[in-house]
Amino acid sequence: MSCVITVTREYGSGGRLIAKMLSERLNIPFYDREIIRRTAEKSGFTEEFVREAEEKKTVSLLYSLYMTSLPVSDQIFLAQSQVILETARQGSCVIVGNCADYVLRDEKNCLNVFVYAPLDERIARVRDEYKEIGEDIRTYVLKQDKKRMTYYNYFTQNKWGYSHNYHISVNSALGLEPCVNIVTEAATAMGV
Amino acid sequence: MSCVITVTREYGSGGRLIAKMLSERLNIPFYDREIIRRTAEKSGFTEEFVREAEEKKTVSLLYSLYMTSLPVSDQIFLAQSQVILETARQGSCVIVGNCADYVLRDEKNCLNVFVYAPLDERIARVRDEYKEIGEDIRTYVLKQDKKRMTYYNYFTQNKWGYSHNYHISVNSALGLEPCVNIVTEAATAMGV
Repeated sequence: MSCVITVTREYGSGGRLIAKMLSERLNIPFYDREIIRRTAEKSGFTEEFVREAEEKKTVSLLYSLYMTSLPVSDQIFLAQSQVILETARQGSCVIVGNCADYVLRDEKNCLNVFVYAPLDERIARVRDEYKEIGEDIRTYVLKQDKKRMTYYNYFTQNKWGYSHNYHISVNSALGLEPCVNIVTEAATAMGV
Repeated sequence: MSCVITVTREYGSGGRLIAKMLSERLNIPFYDREIIRRTAEKSGFTEEFVREAEEKKTVSLLYSLYMTSLPVSDQIFLAQSQVILETARQGSCVIVGNCADYVLRDEKNCLNVFVYAPLDERIARVRDEYKEIGEDIRTYVLKQDKKRMTYYNYFTQNKWGYSHNYHISVNSALGLEPCVNIVTEAATAMGV
Protein backbone atom coordinates (compact mmCIF):
# COMPACT_ATOMS: atom_id res chain seq x y z
CA MET A 1 0.00 0.00 0.00
CA SER A 2 1.35 3.46 -0.79
CA CYS A 3 1.95 6.02 1.96
CA VAL A 4 2.98 9.65 1.67
CA ILE A 5 4.96 11.07 4.56
CA THR A 6 4.84 14.85 4.95
CA VAL A 7 7.49 16.46 7.12
CA THR A 8 6.94 19.93 8.59
CA ARG A 9 9.92 21.21 10.54
CA GLU A 10 11.21 24.03 12.65
CA TYR A 11 14.21 25.79 11.17
CA GLY A 12 17.46 24.12 12.20
CA SER A 13 15.73 21.09 13.75
CA GLY A 14 17.31 18.67 11.27
CA GLY A 15 13.83 17.80 9.99
CA ARG A 16 14.92 17.91 6.35
CA LEU A 17 17.76 15.51 7.12
CA ILE A 18 15.39 13.16 8.98
CA ALA A 19 13.05 13.25 5.96
CA LYS A 20 15.94 12.39 3.63
CA MET A 21 17.10 9.54 5.89
CA LEU A 22 13.50 8.25 6.02
CA SER A 23 13.23 8.17 2.25
CA GLU A 24 16.48 6.19 2.09
CA ARG A 25 15.40 3.80 4.85
CA LEU A 26 12.02 3.16 3.20
CA ASN A 27 13.44 3.32 -0.29
CA ILE A 28 10.88 5.85 -1.55
CA PRO A 29 11.43 9.19 -3.34
CA PHE A 30 12.25 12.37 -1.44
CA TYR A 31 10.67 15.64 -2.60
CA ASP A 32 11.88 19.01 -1.46
CA ARG A 33 13.34 21.30 -4.13
CA GLU A 34 11.77 19.14 -6.82
CA ILE A 35 8.34 20.47 -5.70
CA ILE A 36 9.63 23.99 -6.36
CA ARG A 37 11.03 23.01 -9.77
CA ARG A 38 7.73 21.43 -10.81
CA THR A 39 5.73 24.38 -9.46
CA ALA A 40 7.88 26.78 -11.47
CA GLU A 41 7.28 24.68 -14.56
CA LYS A 42 3.52 24.65 -13.98
CA SER A 43 3.08 28.28 -13.02
CA GLY A 44 5.51 29.88 -15.45
CA PHE A 45 7.40 31.71 -12.69
CA THR A 46 11.11 31.17 -12.11
CA GLU A 47 12.28 28.72 -9.43
CA GLU A 48 13.77 31.58 -7.45
CA PHE A 49 10.49 33.50 -7.54
CA VAL A 50 8.59 30.43 -6.32
CA ARG A 51 11.15 29.83 -3.58
CA GLU A 52 10.74 33.37 -2.35
CA ALA A 53 6.96 33.26 -2.44
CA GLU A 54 6.85 32.57 1.30
CA GLU A 55 8.23 36.01 1.89
CA LYS A 56 5.87 37.69 -0.55
CA LYS A 57 2.74 36.27 1.01
CA THR A 58 1.27 39.55 2.25
CA VAL A 59 -1.80 40.59 0.32
CA SER A 60 -2.79 44.20 0.66
CA LEU A 61 -6.47 45.01 0.88
CA LEU A 62 -6.14 47.59 -1.91
CA TYR A 63 -4.56 44.98 -4.15
CA SER A 64 -7.39 42.56 -3.45
CA LEU A 65 -9.99 45.21 -4.19
CA TYR A 66 -8.58 46.40 -7.50
CA MET A 67 -7.11 43.26 -9.05
CA THR A 68 -9.40 40.83 -10.79
CA SER A 69 -6.90 37.97 -10.92
CA LEU A 70 -5.58 36.11 -7.86
CA PRO A 71 -2.56 37.58 -6.07
CA VAL A 72 0.71 36.07 -7.29
CA SER A 73 1.34 34.31 -3.96
CA ASP A 74 -2.05 32.58 -4.22
CA GLN A 75 -1.38 31.56 -7.82
CA ILE A 76 1.88 29.98 -6.72
CA PHE A 77 0.25 28.25 -3.76
CA LEU A 78 -2.44 26.77 -6.00
CA ALA A 79 0.10 25.58 -8.60
CA GLN A 80 2.20 24.09 -5.81
CA SER A 81 -0.81 22.35 -4.28
CA GLN A 82 -1.57 20.72 -7.65
CA VAL A 83 2.04 19.60 -7.96
CA ILE A 84 1.94 18.09 -4.45
CA LEU A 85 -1.33 16.25 -5.15
CA GLU A 86 -0.01 14.87 -8.46
CA THR A 87 3.26 13.84 -6.81
CA ALA A 88 1.47 12.14 -3.89
CA ARG A 89 -0.77 10.18 -6.25
CA GLN A 90 2.25 8.69 -8.02
CA GLY A 91 3.04 6.50 -4.99
CA SER A 92 4.84 6.42 -1.64
CA CYS A 93 7.22 9.32 -1.01
CA VAL A 94 8.46 11.83 1.55
CA ILE A 95 7.52 15.48 0.99
CA VAL A 96 9.17 18.26 3.00
CA GLY A 97 7.43 21.54 3.85
CA ASN A 98 5.12 23.43 1.48
CA CYS A 99 2.01 22.89 3.66
CA ALA A 100 1.86 19.34 2.23
CA ASP A 101 0.02 18.01 5.30
CA TYR A 102 -2.80 20.48 4.61
CA VAL A 103 -2.79 20.03 0.84
CA LEU A 104 -3.12 16.25 1.27
CA ARG A 105 -5.69 16.42 4.08
CA ASP A 106 -8.30 14.42 2.13
CA GLU A 107 -5.87 11.79 0.82
CA LYS A 108 -5.80 8.38 2.46
CA ASN A 109 -2.55 6.96 3.87
CA CYS A 110 -0.83 10.21 4.48
CA LEU A 111 1.40 10.35 7.56
CA ASN A 112 1.99 13.88 8.81
CA VAL A 113 5.11 14.47 10.89
CA PHE A 114 6.33 17.56 12.73
CA VAL A 115 9.99 17.84 13.71
CA TYR A 116 11.12 20.38 16.30
CA ALA A 117 13.97 20.89 18.75
CA PRO A 118 14.94 23.18 21.63
CA LEU A 119 16.00 26.60 20.32
CA ASP A 120 19.56 26.28 21.63
CA GLU A 121 20.10 23.00 19.77
CA ARG A 122 18.75 24.54 16.58
CA ILE A 123 21.04 27.54 16.93
CA ALA A 124 24.02 25.20 17.40
CA ARG A 125 23.05 23.18 14.31
CA VAL A 126 22.63 26.29 12.17
CA ARG A 127 25.96 27.63 13.41
CA ASP A 128 27.68 24.39 12.40
CA GLU A 129 25.99 23.88 9.06
CA TYR A 130 25.52 27.33 7.58
CA LYS A 131 28.67 29.27 8.21
CA GLU A 132 27.83 32.65 6.74
CA ILE A 133 24.81 34.27 8.29
CA GLY A 134 25.10 38.04 8.35
CA GLU A 135 23.17 38.55 11.55
CA ASP A 136 22.66 37.19 15.05
CA ILE A 137 21.87 33.46 14.61
CA ARG A 138 19.14 33.37 17.27
CA THR A 139 17.28 36.21 15.54
CA TYR A 140 17.81 34.54 12.17
CA VAL A 141 16.42 31.16 13.33
CA LEU A 142 13.37 32.76 14.94
CA LYS A 143 12.77 34.82 11.80
CA GLN A 144 12.83 31.68 9.61
CA ASP A 145 10.30 29.96 11.93
CA LYS A 146 8.13 33.05 11.80
CA LYS A 147 8.14 33.00 7.98
CA ARG A 148 7.17 29.33 7.85
CA MET A 149 4.48 29.84 10.46
CA THR A 150 3.01 32.92 8.76
CA TYR A 151 2.95 31.20 5.37
CA TYR A 152 1.36 28.03 6.77
CA ASN A 153 -1.22 29.79 8.93
CA TYR A 154 -2.19 32.12 6.08
CA PHE A 155 -2.80 29.44 3.48
CA THR A 156 -4.20 26.68 5.67
CA GLN A 157 -6.05 28.53 8.45
CA ASN A 158 -4.45 25.90 10.70
CA LYS A 159 -1.85 26.54 13.36
CA TRP A 160 1.70 25.60 12.33
CA GLY A 161 3.19 23.13 14.82
CA TYR A 162 -0.13 22.40 16.57
CA SER A 163 -0.03 18.69 17.38
CA HIS A 164 -3.50 17.89 16.02
CA ASN A 165 -2.32 18.69 12.47
CA TYR A 166 0.10 15.75 12.65
CA HIS A 167 0.09 12.06 13.45
CA ILE A 168 3.34 12.40 15.28
CA SER A 169 5.63 15.18 16.52
CA VAL A 170 9.23 14.37 17.41
CA ASN A 171 11.88 16.32 19.22
CA SER A 172 15.10 15.82 17.26
CA ALA A 173 17.03 16.20 20.53
CA LEU A 174 16.34 12.44 20.74
CA GLY A 175 18.84 12.08 17.89
CA LEU A 176 18.26 11.95 14.11
CA GLU A 177 18.55 8.17 13.81
CA PRO A 178 16.07 7.50 16.67
CA CYS A 179 13.66 9.98 15.03
CA VAL A 180 13.93 8.00 11.79
CA ASN A 181 13.19 4.79 13.74
CA ILE A 182 10.20 6.40 15.43
CA VAL A 183 8.66 7.71 12.19
CA THR A 184 9.36 4.37 10.49
CA GLU A 185 7.26 2.69 13.22
CA ALA A 186 4.43 5.11 12.49
CA ALA A 187 4.79 4.57 8.72
CA THR A 188 4.67 0.80 9.27
CA ALA A 189 1.41 1.25 11.18
CA MET A 190 0.00 3.05 8.13
CA GLY A 191 1.13 0.22 5.87
CA VAL A 192 3.95 1.90 3.95
CA MET B 1 20.11 2.88 32.74
CA SER B 2 16.84 3.95 34.30
CA CYS B 3 14.30 6.01 32.37
CA VAL B 4 11.05 7.56 33.54
CA ILE B 5 8.32 7.92 30.96
CA THR B 6 5.70 10.57 31.68
CA VAL B 7 2.45 10.40 29.76
CA THR B 8 0.21 13.46 29.42
CA ARG B 9 -3.01 12.76 27.55
CA GLU B 10 -6.14 14.32 26.21
CA TYR B 11 -9.31 12.95 27.75
CA GLY B 12 -10.54 9.86 25.91
CA SER B 13 -7.39 9.53 23.78
CA GLY B 14 -6.49 6.14 25.24
CA GLY B 15 -3.29 7.64 26.63
CA ARG B 16 -3.70 5.90 29.98
CA LEU B 17 -4.11 2.57 28.22
CA ILE B 18 -1.02 3.24 26.08
CA ALA B 19 0.93 4.06 29.26
CA LYS B 20 -0.21 0.81 30.88
CA MET B 21 0.70 -1.22 27.78
CA LEU B 22 4.10 0.50 27.71
CA SER B 23 4.81 -0.45 31.32
CA GLU B 24 3.94 -4.08 30.51
CA ARG B 25 6.03 -4.07 27.31
CA LEU B 26 9.05 -2.60 29.12
CA ASN B 27 8.37 -4.49 32.32
CA ILE B 28 8.55 -1.41 34.53
CA PRO B 29 6.04 -0.12 37.14
CA PHE B 30 3.00 1.93 36.13
CA TYR B 31 1.94 4.83 38.36
CA ASP B 32 -1.41 6.53 38.09
CA ARG B 33 -3.72 6.24 41.13
CA GLU B 34 -0.76 5.15 43.25
CA ILE B 35 0.57 8.74 42.99
CA ILE B 36 -2.72 9.96 44.47
CA ARG B 37 -2.61 7.34 47.25
CA ARG B 38 0.95 8.33 48.17
CA THR B 39 0.11 12.04 47.98
CA ALA B 40 -2.85 11.54 50.32
CA GLU B 41 -0.59 9.69 52.73
CA LYS B 42 2.02 12.46 52.62
CA SER B 43 -0.35 15.43 52.83
CA GLY B 44 -2.88 14.08 55.29
CA PHE B 45 -5.82 14.74 52.97
CA THR B 46 -8.12 11.96 51.80
CA GLU B 47 -7.54 10.31 48.41
CA GLU B 48 -10.85 11.69 47.16
CA PHE B 49 -9.87 15.22 48.20
CA VAL B 50 -6.51 14.90 46.39
CA ARG B 51 -8.22 13.50 43.27
CA GLU B 52 -10.59 16.46 43.20
CA ALA B 53 -7.83 19.00 43.74
CA GLU B 54 -7.68 19.72 40.00
CA GLU B 55 -11.16 21.18 40.27
CA LYS B 56 -10.41 23.23 43.35
CA LYS B 57 -7.39 24.96 41.88
CA THR B 58 -8.82 28.49 41.78
CA VAL B 59 -7.16 30.76 44.27
CA SER B 60 -9.08 33.90 45.12
CA LEU B 61 -7.14 37.09 45.63
CA LEU B 62 -8.85 37.68 48.96
CA TYR B 63 -7.80 34.21 50.12
CA SER B 64 -4.20 34.89 49.10
CA LEU B 65 -4.22 38.22 50.94
CA TYR B 66 -5.61 36.98 54.23
CA MET B 67 -4.19 33.48 54.56
CA THR B 68 -0.67 33.04 55.78
CA SER B 69 -0.37 29.40 54.79
CA LEU B 70 -0.37 28.10 51.20
CA PRO B 71 -3.74 27.46 49.56
CA VAL B 72 -4.81 23.82 49.90
CA SER B 73 -4.42 23.17 46.14
CA ASP B 74 -0.79 24.35 46.29
CA GLN B 75 -0.11 22.20 49.36
CA ILE B 76 -1.43 19.19 47.48
CA PHE B 77 0.58 20.06 44.35
CA LEU B 78 3.77 20.32 46.42
CA ALA B 79 3.14 17.03 48.22
CA GLN B 80 2.37 15.37 44.88
CA SER B 81 5.54 16.79 43.30
CA GLN B 82 7.61 15.29 46.13
CA VAL B 83 5.90 11.93 45.66
CA ILE B 84 6.60 12.03 41.90
CA LEU B 85 10.27 12.91 42.44
CA GLU B 86 10.72 10.15 45.03
CA THR B 87 8.95 7.66 42.76
CA ALA B 88 11.03 8.62 39.71
CA ARG B 89 14.26 8.25 41.67
CA GLN B 90 13.41 4.65 42.57
CA GLY B 91 14.02 3.55 38.94
CA SER B 92 12.40 3.19 35.52
CA CYS B 93 8.63 3.59 35.48
CA VAL B 94 5.68 5.09 33.60
CA ILE B 95 3.84 7.97 35.30
CA VAL B 96 0.50 9.21 33.98
CA GLY B 97 -0.68 12.83 34.33
CA ASN B 98 -0.08 15.00 37.42
CA CYS B 99 2.23 17.43 35.54
CA ALA B 100 4.99 14.82 35.91
CA ASP B 101 6.85 16.14 32.83
CA TYR B 102 7.17 19.51 34.55
CA VAL B 103 7.93 18.14 38.02
CA LEU B 104 10.76 16.01 36.56
CA ARG B 105 12.12 18.73 34.25
CA ASP B 106 15.57 18.69 35.86
CA GLU B 107 15.88 14.90 36.04
CA LYS B 108 18.02 13.10 33.51
CA ASN B 109 16.58 10.31 31.35
CA CYS B 110 13.01 11.41 31.49
CA LEU B 111 10.97 10.81 28.33
CA ASN B 112 7.92 13.06 28.08
CA VAL B 113 5.07 11.85 25.89
CA PHE B 114 1.81 13.55 24.88
CA VAL B 115 -1.07 11.44 23.57
CA TYR B 116 -3.97 13.05 21.71
CA ALA B 117 -6.62 12.09 19.17
CA PRO B 118 -9.25 13.73 16.98
CA LEU B 119 -12.25 14.83 19.07
CA ASP B 120 -14.70 12.50 17.29
CA GLU B 121 -12.54 9.47 18.05
CA ARG B 122 -12.30 10.50 21.69
CA ILE B 123 -16.05 10.94 21.95
CA ALA B 124 -16.55 7.46 20.47
CA ARG B 125 -14.07 5.95 22.93
CA VAL B 126 -15.69 7.65 25.92
CA ARG B 127 -19.14 6.56 24.73
CA ASP B 128 -17.95 2.94 24.54
CA GLU B 129 -15.97 2.83 27.76
CA TYR B 130 -17.89 5.00 30.20
CA LYS B 131 -21.53 4.23 29.78
CA GLU B 132 -23.12 6.61 32.26
CA ILE B 133 -22.36 10.24 31.65
CA GLY B 134 -25.19 12.49 32.66
CA GLU B 135 -24.58 15.10 29.95
CA ASP B 136 -23.70 15.57 26.30
CA ILE B 137 -20.49 13.57 25.75
CA ARG B 138 -18.82 16.19 23.50
CA THR B 139 -19.30 18.85 26.21
CA TYR B 140 -18.08 16.42 28.87
CA VAL B 141 -14.88 15.52 26.97
CA LEU B 142 -14.06 19.16 26.26
CA LYS B 143 -14.68 20.02 29.91
CA GLN B 144 -12.27 17.30 31.08
CA ASP B 145 -9.58 18.62 28.69
CA LYS B 146 -10.20 22.12 29.98
CA LYS B 147 -9.73 20.96 33.59
CA ARG B 148 -6.44 19.23 32.77
CA MET B 149 -5.22 22.20 30.78
CA THR B 150 -6.16 24.75 33.45
CA TYR B 151 -4.50 22.70 36.18
CA TYR B 152 -1.32 22.15 34.14
CA ASN B 153 -1.01 25.73 32.90
CA TYR B 154 -1.62 27.11 36.40
CA PHE B 155 1.01 25.05 38.17
CA THR B 156 3.67 24.86 35.48
CA GLN B 157 3.36 28.16 33.60
CA ASN B 158 3.79 25.96 30.51
CA LYS B 159 1.17 25.32 27.86
CA TRP B 160 -0.52 21.91 28.13
CA GLY B 161 -0.15 19.97 24.86
CA TYR B 162 2.50 22.33 23.40
CA SER B 163 4.92 20.06 21.55
CA HIS B 164 8.08 21.60 23.04
CA ASN B 165 7.13 20.26 26.50
CA TYR B 166 7.46 16.71 25.19
CA HIS B 167 9.97 14.52 23.38
CA ILE B 168 7.22 12.99 21.33
CA SER B 169 3.52 13.56 20.68
CA VAL B 170 1.43 10.76 19.15
CA ASN B 171 -2.02 10.70 17.68
CA SER B 172 -3.67 7.54 19.00
CA ALA B 173 -5.69 7.39 15.76
CA LEU B 174 -2.60 5.48 14.58
CA GLY B 175 -3.75 2.66 16.89
CA LEU B 176 -2.79 1.90 20.50
CA GLU B 177 -0.33 -0.87 19.67
CA PRO B 178 1.55 1.29 17.07
CA CYS B 179 1.71 4.09 19.63
CA VAL B 180 3.30 1.70 22.12
CA ASN B 181 5.83 0.67 19.43
CA ILE B 182 6.59 4.31 18.65
CA VAL B 183 7.15 5.30 22.28
CA THR B 184 9.21 2.15 22.85
CA GLU B 185 11.54 3.31 20.04
CA ALA B 186 11.91 6.67 21.78
CA ALA B 187 12.50 4.99 25.14
CA THR B 188 15.16 2.77 23.57
CA ALA B 189 16.90 5.90 22.29
CA MET B 190 16.99 7.17 25.87
CA GLY B 191 18.45 3.90 27.06
CA VAL B 192 15.53 2.49 29.03
